[in-house]
Amino acid sequence: MILDRRQAITTGLVATAATTLLPAAAMPVSARDAATSGQPPAYYRIKVGGIEVIRVHDGVAARPLDASFVKNAELADVQAALAAAFQPTDKVVIPFTTTVVRTPQHTVLIDTSLGEFGPPTAGAWAKNLAAAGVAAAKVDLVVISHFHGDHISGLRGKDGTSAFPNAKVMVPEAEWAFWMDDGQMSRAPEAMQAGFQNVRRVFGPIAAEVAPFTDGQELVPGLRVMAAHGHTPGHSVFLVSDGSDQLLVWSDTTNKPELFVKNPGWQAVFDMDGERAAATRLRLLDMAAADRLLVAGYHFPFPATGHIARDGDSYAYVPVFWQANL
Amino acid sequence: MILDRRQAITTGLVATAATTLLPAAAMPVSARDAATSGQPPAYYRIKVGGIEVIRVHDGVAARPLDASFVKNAELADVQAALAAAFQPTDKVVIPFTTTVVRTPQHTVLIDTSLGEFGPPTAGAWAKNLAAAGVAAAKVDLVVISHFHGDHISGLRGKDGTSAFPNAKVMVPEAEWAFWMDDGQMSRAPEAMQAGFQNVRRVFGPIAAEVAPFTDGQELVPGLRVMAAHGHTPGHSVFLVSDGSDQLLVWSDTTNKPELFVKNPGWQAVFDMDGERAAATRLRLLDMAAADRLLVAGYHFPFPATGHIARDGDSYAYVPVFWQANL
Repeated sequence: MILDRRQAITTGLVATAATTLLPAAAMPVSARDAATSGQPPAYYRIKVGGIEVIRVHDGVAARPLDASFVKNAELADVQAALAAAFQPTDKVVIPFTTTVVRTPQHTVLIDTSLGEFGPPTAGAWAKNLAAAGVAAAKVDLVVISHFHGDHISGLRGKDGTSAFPNAKVMVPEAEWAFWMDDGQMSRAPEAMQAGFQNVRRVFGPIAAEVAPFTDGQELVPGLRVMAAHGHTPGHSVFLVSDGSDQLLVWSDTTNKPELFVKNPGWQAVFDMDGERAAATRLRLLDMAAADRLLVAGYHFPFPATGHIARDGDSYAYVPVFWQANL
Repeated sequence: MILDRRQAITTGLVATAATTLLPAAAMPVSARDAATSGQPPAYYRIKVGGIEVIRVHDGVAARPLDASFVKNAELADVQAALAAAFQPTDKVVIPFTTTVVRTPQHTVLIDTSLGEFGPPTAGAWAKNLAAAGVAAAKVDLVVISHFHGDHISGLRGKDGTSAFPNAKVMVPEAEWAFWMDDGQMSRAPEAMQAGFQNVRRVFGPIAAEVAPFTDGQELVPGLRVMAAHGHTPGHSVFLVSDGSDQLLVWSDTTNKPELFVKNPGWQAVFDMDGERAAATRLRLLDMAAADRLLVAGYHFPFPATGHIARDGDSYAYVPVFWQANL
């Protein structure tokens, strides 16, 4: 090794780069496809005993951060929590990740994301489902946690066709009772009218076939409902289990964990019954921490899967250790 | 919606699944390829101004956990730290993630992983490089942080050929001086002999061309060396910067953050000069936290990128918020 070649080598790199660039045609196809930019497909598999769970990401939506986002916290405290998580403080970036549950007999989809109705920062869901090997025609059950637009819109395209034509659709009984009630719609504030209309767009054409579920019901073997009302009137979470292996599909028990796992008493603007949502949140955080449950959160950062740890008087979110080999 | 259809629908799902399974030939190619199992390719892109950084994962290695792993901590405390991170306590699972830095003129690879020399739980590196669009022939500079086997072995295949035939190789001057010294090798304990031999296997054939670097040196525009000695005699980290955007390539300043970010004074069995490694670790943790630097850690969980936050008298690792859209 010649020590005084140091500068020459650094300078010489430009020439080396120019002469070793290969034409694209000489590259393997996989490299050529991926070469320009972009992340890998955003899905992540988890084994729960003999059940395969796949987290499938749709993207994110950003909204300007103002005092309305957390109904019972000071804006400065919310900004401080975001800064502590190394996230922007002038906006809230909310990710969306749905869940596929493949049992020996069934391919179940829990929630359907924004589908064709999201902002440009979302909309990767169909592509990510395909990359994960989930064919829409093979989904035989769609389970809905609650009727907010980011959980139901993708069930039906802009042209009115079903995105999962061979799937039964099951929904929380209390959710259906609230949102499909025309009296509730007529009494609701203007800001909620679009939500009621979207529920009718999605479920109207299949209203006679939609099946309700209630607390404790086993939807298919290994997938059980747990009522978690408050965020919405029928908001539900789901326990996937096979033997002693368990995964809790958290739905919107918390929105961003950086805010609402750390501060369970904070009520997001989306929590329709803020007090009840916070009580449910505390109950499920306590259960997840005590039982060391793996938790799949709809609004957790991708891969949107992790554990809940006690942290003093509060809780902390611990993202899953990425398993590249299953 | 007919409420009393609930049981019939649940029961009926088995029949529905059987009739809606499509033959594989009817599925799109992308779905067919991915359908059976497996995770997406494990790479992750980061923009540092106009520089593209790609974290490329190789896999993990597990070693039984015993009292030797942390030289100056009680085994029970190490086990407790792993349990707090929801990781196994009977073994230590160590991930490996290398770094590609693409500047307008150069494709630089920092460290070369285990290559063909890893356990079955590793070895995905070449596949992940290709998936990320990094052709081996286009790498024009390989930079080595230090000479431990998991950082250099992949530079050369089992057949002796270079994995990056068009690349210059640059290494820490102090690292070269130590490991290439036959006197050091002769005085080293038996457990280190394989390491010395591996250094000779990797660098012997190119000894005359390898270029040394020292603290503060700019290797290519936007990539600067920072000496971080202690883990090994010449262990180095690297600052990637473009304008005000920065990323610190952390190398082995810490091994697993669950242990050594939280407990910077703990000395891993791999820290050759334990006291000096701990002092360097504290200095860089303090710098990363104070400057809110994005940090790429070789042994962080994939995507192996995040921030360092002060946490009482210690520090915490905050994984990056996954950006699916660049």
